[in-house]
Amino acid sequence: MHILLINPNSTASMTSLAHESALRVVQPTTRVSAVNPQETPVSIEGAADEALSVPGMLAEIRKGERDGVDAYVIACFDDPGLHAAREIARGPVIGICQAGIQVAMTVSRRFSVVTTLPRSIPIIEELVSAYGAERHCRNVRAIDLPVLGLEEDPERSERLLVAEIAKAKKEDRAEAIVLGCAGMSALCERLTLATGILVIDGVTAAVKFAEALVGAGYATSKVGGYDFPTVKSPVAIHKDMVRGSA
Amino acid sequence: MHILLINPNSTASMTSLAHESALRVVQPTTRVSAVNPQETPVSIEGAADEALSVPGMLAEIRKGERDGVDAYVIACFDDPGLHAAREIARGPVIGICQAGIQVAMTVSRRFSVVTTLPRSIPIIEELVSAYGAERHCRNVRAIDLPVLGLEEDPERSERLLVAEIAKAKKEDRAEAIVLGCAGMSALCERLTLATGILVIDGVTAAVKFAEALVGAGYATSKVGGYDFPTVKSPVAIHKDMVRGSA
Amino acid sequence: MHILLINPNSTASMTSLAHESALRVVQPTTRVSAVNPQETPVSIEGAADEALSVPGMLAEIRKGERDGVDAYVIACFDDPGLHAAREIARGPVIGICQAGIQVAMTVSRRFSVVTTLPRSIPIIEELVSAYGAERHCRNVRAIDLPVLGLEEDPERSERLLVAEIAKAKKEDRAEAIVLGCAGMSALCERLTLATGILVIDGVTAAVKFAEALVGAGYATSKVGGYDFPTVKSPVAIHKDMVRGSA
Amino acid sequence: MHILLINPNSTASMTSLAHESALRVVQPTTRVSAVNPQETPVSIEGAADEALSVPGMLAEIRKGERDGVDAYVIACFDDPGLHAAREIARGPVIGICQAGIQVAMTVSRRFSVVTTLPRSIPIIEELVSAYGAERHCRNVRAIDLPVLGLEEDPERSERLLVAEIAKAKKEDRAEAIVLGCAGMSALCERLTLATGILVIDGVTAAVKFAEALVGAGYATSKVGGYDFPTVKSPVAIHKDMVRGSA
Amino acid sequence: MHILLINPNSTASMTSLAHESALRVVQPTTRVSAVNPQETPVSIEGAADEALSVPGMLAEIRKGERDGVDAYVIACFDDPGLHAAREIARGPVIGICQAGIQVAMTVSRRFSVVTTLPRSIPIIEELVSAYGAERHCRNVRAIDLPVLGLEEDPERSERLLVAEIAKAKKEDRAEAIVLGCAGMSALCERLTLATGILVIDGVTAAVKFAEALVGAGYATSKVGGYDFPTVKSPVAIHKDMVRGSA
Amino acid sequence: MHILLINPNSTASMTSLAHESALRVVQPTTRVSAVNPQETPVSIEGAADEALSVPGMLAEIRKGERDGVDAYVIACFDDPGLHAAREIARGPVIGICQAGIQVAMTVSRRFSVVTTLPRSIPIIEELVSAYGAERHCRNVRAIDLPVLGLEEDPERSERLLVAEIAKAKKEDRAEAIVLGCAGMSALCERLTLATGILVIDGVTAAVKFAEALVGAGYATSKVGGYDFPTVKSPVAIHKDMVRGSA
Repeated sequence: MHILLINPNSTASMTSLAHESALRVVQPTTRVSAVNPQETPVSIEGAADEALSVPGMLAEIRKGERDGVDAYVIACFDDPGLHAAREIARGPVIGICQAGIQVAMTVSRRFSVVTTLPRSIPIIEELVSAYGAERHCRNVRAIDLPVLGLEEDPERSERLLVAEIAKAKKEDRAEAIVLGCAGMSALCERLTLATGILVIDGVTAAVKFAEALVGAGYATSKVGGYDFPTVKSPVAIHKDMVRGSA
Repeated sequence: MHILLINPNSTASMTSLAHESALRVVQPTTRVSAVNPQETPVSIEGAADEALSVPGMLAEIRKGERDGVDAYVIACFDDPGLHAAREIARGPVIGICQAGIQVAMTVSRRFSVVTTLPRSIPIIEELVSAYGAERHCRNVRAIDLPVLGLEEDPERSERLLVAEIAKAKKEDRAEAIVLGCAGMSALCERLTLATGILVIDGVTAAVKFAEALVGAGYATSKVGGYDFPTVKSPVAIHKDMVRGSA
Repeated sequence: MHILLINPNSTASMTSLAHESALRVVQPTTRVSAVNPQETPVSIEGAADEALSVPGMLAEIRKGERDGVDAYVIACFDDPGLHAAREIARGPVIGICQAGIQVAMTVSRRFSVVTTLPRSIPIIEELVSAYGAERHCRNVRAIDLPVLGLEEDPERSERLLVAEIAKAKKEDRAEAIVLGCAGMSALCERLTLATGILVIDGVTAAVKFAEALVGAGYATSKVGGYDFPTVKSPVAIHKDMVRGSA
Repeated sequence: MHILLINPNSTASMTSLAHESALRVVQPTTRVSAVNPQETPVSIEGAADEALSVPGMLAEIRKGERDGVDAYVIACFDDPGLHAAREIARGPVIGICQAGIQVAMTVSRRFSVVTTLPRSIPIIEELVSAYGAERHCRNVRAIDLPVLGLEEDPERSERLLVAEIAKAKKEDRAEAIVLGCAGMSALCERLTLATGILVIDGVTAAVKFAEALVGAGYATSKVGGYDFPTVKSPVAIHKDMVRGSA
Repeated sequence: MHILLINPNSTASMTSLAHESALRVVQPTTRVSAVNPQETPVSIEGAADEALSVPGMLAEIRKGERDGVDAYVIACFDDPGLHAAREIARGPVIGICQAGIQVAMTVSRRFSVVTTLPRSIPIIEELVSAYGAERHCRNVRAIDLPVLGLEEDPERSERLLVAEIAKAKKEDRAEAIVLGCAGMSALCERLTLATGILVIDGVTAAVKFAEALVGAGYATSKVGGYDFPTVKSPVAIHKDMVRGSA
Repeated sequence: MHILLINPNSTASMTSLAHESALRVVQPTTRVSAVNPQETPVSIEGAADEALSVPGMLAEIRKGERDGVDAYVIACFDDPGLHAAREIARGPVIGICQAGIQVAMTVSRRFSVVTTLPRSIPIIEELVSAYGAERHCRNVRAIDLPVLGLEEDPERSERLLVAEIAKAKKEDRAEAIVLGCAGMSALCERLTLATGILVIDGVTAAVKFAEALVGAGYATSKVGGYDFPTVKSPVAIHKDMVRGSA
């Protein structure tokens, strides 16, 4: 099976990092490729960054459909363009926030999310609510470090994450932690060891759920809300393709 | 005061139509201009159309900021890119779905929404929930007509709307109706007369709320979630500007 | 257009204060008059005070209907008798709590309310829920000062409000503040300046929304829940009038 | 123990009817008296009627406090002034809607409410939500008969109720029915027999819960929201007393 | 009337303790017997303990049905097997958690629960939600003492409870406290005196509600979810009886 | 990896059926064994059946822990004893209801559940709520056939399911269907073909999710709510073991 992992931002090093996390856990028979659009923000911090990243991400999915990709993983914790992607794809499209939360709701009764910037807290809270985890999610916390800061100073990032996770365990009575940024993926195991609480990485969760859904034979339903985008006047289609392949 | 009404799709006739609805109700001292991006879908039917319309819409807001616009109205009932727009704008940004719902929650106890295509129902239901109207909104209904169909066959559209509103009144015990598409704006008063129930047009509601907020001196809070997008590496900014002025 | 602002308590100085806030923001063509019933509690602190204030407030609305008032603002943050008032009025009736919350939900992602007495916290929490803002409202806080204390010692009131708003900004991650008492109206701008966070005054918000709804041509729906009170036996009507004009 | 049952409307025949329902079920050692204010609407149909009935009802509670009443039952299904009454009373105050719903949530998994006029449906839905029964309450139905119609034509009322309850059983899969008006109290058992589904009368439920709470030694908490109304300036108190004993 | 109080764990001393609390408040004409199964955990701390306690508890209810018991009280705050018990019983079955919460929602606007072990917090939070008290319940707190610790060291237990209740009053603005363990029953009044806030014991509440429901003539509805368990093949029935009378 | 599938009822034919569904989709390297307790009800229809099935099911998990099982699937749509099982197991425990719902929330925007008996509807509705799918689940429907009826008359079962699914598609606007009983597992693909809507089988979903979680390295968190059951007095442990190995 072929899973396409898309990092919606344009920072190739984050793409490779997420790719490695995926390769670490997939079955031998699964092919995972990873891409990122060229013309998107270098990191996704807020709704405007999200919005600017989605058309490029959707273009990658259109390419994937032509290449016979079986499932897609969107490797940004805001799950940008998730519903749009599901309209375009035949196979399942997994967001790392939704997948991370589904794991947390399965292996713990109460969890907290730890993300990078405080400005993302309300965005993630809305996702928590959209995915039905309001009762299960104790808190969404931020270490107040920009996304790219995770790469620039890994030691500091890890220190901040360990401290925030410890607070989540003590103050929130969190039973598991969901990492609120694809850029934290590689730290997952080290954080579990350092804090003594299960830390969940959305990239890992999403890739395994993608494999599971394809293996189960479940694709995106094309009845109703996730049906393919309506085809309109030739002009519209043309514009669409242009943008799609931009 | 200067209000910029943005129709996120690329159908100029719908832009003019919404513009007229706005001009009909603004104060003499209010200037309303209306635009639509060139390179967006001809109509917004689903999440993929939304996603493709947002960058162009945000570019119009960036222009508006340079031109000293005081408030913005996004004239598509899915409120596409609403949060992103609020990050970019200094003044208030009003979505016609949120404004229509706020009016409905003020002048009635229970309302229903009537939109065009069934595929938009879950999208609007999520907005109803995001705006806190789950208890107040009895139902989201669709007349099963594409957005552009509203212009192509106005008589049929009106017949379908009158019939659906009558059902909402009887079956849902709706006390008011919110029109679920900017393209229905002009029909609003005729529908109220034809059905004997208050019919609310989001464009009208949004333009008046924009005037109200500017008049009250309330702008978008730049503390937290709606702060301006983070400025990143020059490259990132540059890309951003390019896209912004595309 | 004629807007009638009703302060449900019997403290005339608070009525004038709210009147001034209204006059500061209305359009030149809008007439705002302000009244308060004579026989109501001097301040509204809890549900019993509310209950005793409503019949007098409704009597003012009946008078307003005879005088052709276009819209009403109830200038008490508990929105006492809001639903009852809407049954009696033809035009829109705006509560300052609902209006303040609608503004906060439009210009910020998360807000907190700051009110006077702790005993009002559950009352306001119920309103927050009724208006669909449970996810958007981070916290309802009280400065533990009686309503009349706001007038008796303005300096102290301001100090307490500045301190509580600062806590809301830091501890709740509030992005905007809604003032939880009509008596705080005049302090609004000073508090914004002192705290660096948008502070919203419900009186201002409500008066502008009243103008907006009348300008848009939206009145209270008389289909269903807000229909005029049922006329019963002459005796009943008579009693009603007596009380109404008491 | 002394329980005071207050019918907030001024129709003495309804008061006697509720009184009889209470006397039918209380313990021999329990004294139940029943009153109604003189100057309130003849029936409570909507929020305005509620508002006009509350001050008189609160006055009865003040009298009750002077007479050493142990608990109060408010015999109107809208639970008008329930929170206000609890501020004034030392002992428990039971609303028939809340009590009926608590019984329904204890003896069934899903129930429906059947009331008189459609205009009361949103009011009762808000109570269902306030009492935490949104998931348990399948539907709020109305037989479209004015409250006083129940007395004027008992046969027709019973026919309409039997038909509506049958629909609730079949269409809502209701497992129990809560009667949505104190005036239906006497029909309760006959309706259970006629429909083969448990029918719950709020008056009966409330009186027994009042006995239970007094028997358990639980009074209204005076810490926080239900504390006694604040005593203000002598003038205020005086006004208060005047109204209180009006 | 005959009420059977069942302590689902096998610690006879806790059964007697709950029995005493019941005897303290029932009417002279009410007979209360108390039992506990032999083969269940010595205390119920978590979902596995619950699960192991339920079949024995249901067997006691089957016996009760043969003995003509009128109502049942399950004296464990997790309300283990409550729905199952209601399927088997003709009369009402009251859980002490649901009853305690119903009292708290009637005599206060906001309450907190204080239980023994932190691991029970999510279990109780789910019950709070199932019983519709999410808005009314401020917090679920634990004193971090095993259930049997309550008996082993009563002084320490009381000290811990007084301290935790004081925190709930101050930090949660709780207006009443619900004791989160049947083993705390005897301390209820002393805790109210020591903390100056109403403390509610679920055993007391449940026994009085059981009396109230029987007195009102309300039994468990056998239409729908609480219908008697389906009788299956003889083998199945036989197994069932064996287990039932084990 | 070794996955143990447990059918909590005692009908071996249903166990084999679920086993086959599992074997159809697992990876070659995954070992799936399937068991059912001997002394449990022949089918699970309601909460009492559930309660009687759980201790035997937990005993199988204890055995599994001794045999080094990596993950467990509970093959009954009521997810009986799911939380209890997670306390006992080291690895993940997947309920087929939760897994089926998680798939439905990933591949569609709105779904309905189709189960066997109407009495299970409220039970499943509570699970839908507990798993956070209240907004996504349009309806829970029943074909009114006992669980064992699925085997006794497969043709009729299929006819009834096709008809009910068609209604869910049309009346509920369901975009996917979750089969509400493990006994329907084998029909899944045929139903998808017959109805033209994606039909999801919880057994298939749960087995693949179990593989995914083990593959990702996520086990059940032992911090907090899912910690191992407390070890009490030897007597208690002994009893426990006895029952555990019964």
